[in-house]
Amino acid sequence: MTDDYTIDYELSDDDEYIHNKWDNSLESVLTVEPGEVVRFECRDALDGQITPGSTAEDFGNVSFDPVHPLTGPVAVEGAEPGDVLAVEFLDFEHKGWGYTGYMPGEMGYGLLPEDFEEGGLYIWDLGDDVAHFVNDIEVPLNLFPGIAGVAPAASGAHNTLPPRDTGGNMDVAQLTKGSTLYLPIEVEDALFSTGDCHAAQGDGEVCVTGIEAPMFVTARFDVLKDKSISQPELETAAISIGSEGPAYGTTGIDDNLMGAMKRAVRHMISHLESEHGLTRGEAYILCSAALDLKMSEVVGAPNWSVTAFLPNSIFPE
Amino acid sequence: MTDDYTIDYELSDDDEYIHNKWDNSLESVLTVEPGEVVRFECRDALDGQITPGSTAEDFGNVSFDPVHPLTGPVAVEGAEPGDVLAVEFLDFEHKGWGYTGYMPGEMGYGLLPEDFEEGGLYIWDLGDDVAHFVNDIEVPLNLFPGIAGVAPAASGAHNTLPPRDTGGNMDVAQLTKGSTLYLPIEVEDALFSTGDCHAAQGDGEVCVTGIEAPMFVTARFDVLKDKSISQPELETAAISIGSEGPAYGTTGIDDNLMGAMKRAVRHMISHLESEHGLTRGEAYILCSAALDLKMSEVVGAPNWSVTAFLPNSIFPE
Repeated sequence: MTDDYTIDYELSDDDEYIHNKWDNSLESVLTVEPGEVVRFECRDALDGQITPGSTAEDFGNVSFDPVHPLTGPVAVEGAEPGDVLAVEFLDFEHKGWGYTGYMPGEMGYGLLPEDFEEGGLYIWDLGDDVAHFVNDIEVPLNLFPGIAGVAPAASGAHNTLPPRDTGGNMDVAQLTKGSTLYLPIEVEDALFSTGDCHAAQGDGEVCVTGIEAPMFVTARFDVLKDKSISQPELETAAISIGSEGPAYGTTGIDDNLMGAMKRAVRHMISHLESEHGLTRGEAYILCSAALDLKMSEVVGAPNWSVTAFLPNSIFPE
Repeated sequence: MTDDYTIDYELSDDDEYIHNKWDNSLESVLTVEPGEVVRFECRDALDGQITPGSTAEDFGNVSFDPVHPLTGPVAVEGAEPGDVLAVEFLDFEHKGWGYTGYMPGEMGYGLLPEDFEEGGLYIWDLGDDVAHFVNDIEVPLNLFPGIAGVAPAASGAHNTLPPRDTGGNMDVAQLTKGSTLYLPIEVEDALFSTGDCHAAQGDGEVCVTGIEAPMFVTARFDVLKDKSISQPELETAAISIGSEGPAYGTTGIDDNLMGAMKRAVRHMISHLESEHGLTRGEAYILCSAALDLKMSEVVGAPNWSVTAFLPNSIFPE
């Protein structure tokens, strides 16, 4: 990684550069040579339906039709099926604000829909290094694209919600500035798109939103002919950004892996409620923005243990 | 945490202080007051069946009858059902060696039994700070007890393999020196035991062994009457020991959460094979000793993404 680069192309978030399905029949909006740098302007995941003045009720009434607006697709010259696309993330810039919300439970989104009958929304003020939360809690910024991927070989228009072999909505929070993402190329010219940017996100993105934020993404492309992968891989610049040092952890133990995860997050929500004075909704939002969610033990059948951590450093002293 | 403490009691690993079932009818081997410090000598998980001279064949032929030898139980005065036992881990000392192994696949242990027909074993030489692996790879030491727990309320003798509400085989690799474990007390006097110590362990303990090592565990006990938890919680001194900085990650994407985890680990094994010259067995062992295994996204139904990371710092330059 180097800060010494030149932007070769800029793609704005105008309609002509935006699409919201994975579809290898889409025409590329730009063709680049390997080594060239593109600055993408990316809309937020809900395509502008939430603004700094929005309420929880607004969040519960959003339309899912435009999810997720992606910027692209970019054709990379020489990219052929079986090759690997290397995407080096050189810079991210937010626009000063973001939001994290959870939908009313009956809609079924997120890790714990059964725990939250009503939805919730928090609008974040984003500084240079931290996002400001209630009770003087500060979440370290950790800008990355929730979605980065190439077109799948399978024809037709594919939903952007599930991650796929070709990447997409992976929500790997370690894909930060200086990181390189490797994607298996399935179609000629690769057809790369990105969006759904997060100013920070906890592992798991438990509310179904990180800190959603419109953002600029600057990336350099390369085509690797001698690398072969079947699903995405990455070199991260900082595996544990914002989660070094002492932390509080809650362990979820259950005979179902998803159940163990739910319990770990529920225990953390209870902890935040009793020890840090947060409402359960605020606690859920904080988890979605900052949680470190680790598989502790997946071999002690019939029970598994998953541990959720929040670093002490995000709380005021 | 303070290094300024006095050891009040020592428990050796003689037969009279060892048991290998969770059973609230066991008589305590020691009674302590809150605030007192105990140094436990702990046998390895396989109770001495593996020695520095053992082979993979020996590992495949071990008996599971003695698993896991635990030191205790220790009664804590004043502990009553509904209270919380705080266990502050003051120090760990290894004995210079450890082992990581995986069983032949037909035995069904570990995350990937279907991938490994034959078993494997590696004997580690443990230094002050690192454990030495093949190809000059060095895994940072990260000493902790794989098992720490109190007796369950349910009568009878319970297997030590699955973790339980009262703790036990949680394998939380962040339970390192300076950390405090909170356990929900279900029976009078709590009845605490520990063992199955690891000199390091990757999240998930994918081979079903960390770096298994006989060890001394020094801990101070307290009984909290005003805290209430239903499963274990902890304050860790260092959430990301040994896994700071740049790292390589492999993402597993699948419509089954356990499947996504298996794919993430398989991708990492393939990466270690192609990029670092390890055999698949060596790679599996290294993952079991050092992997950072994160839930990236658990809300993008129908697919989930899990990412396995190994820090660059463990590899020679």
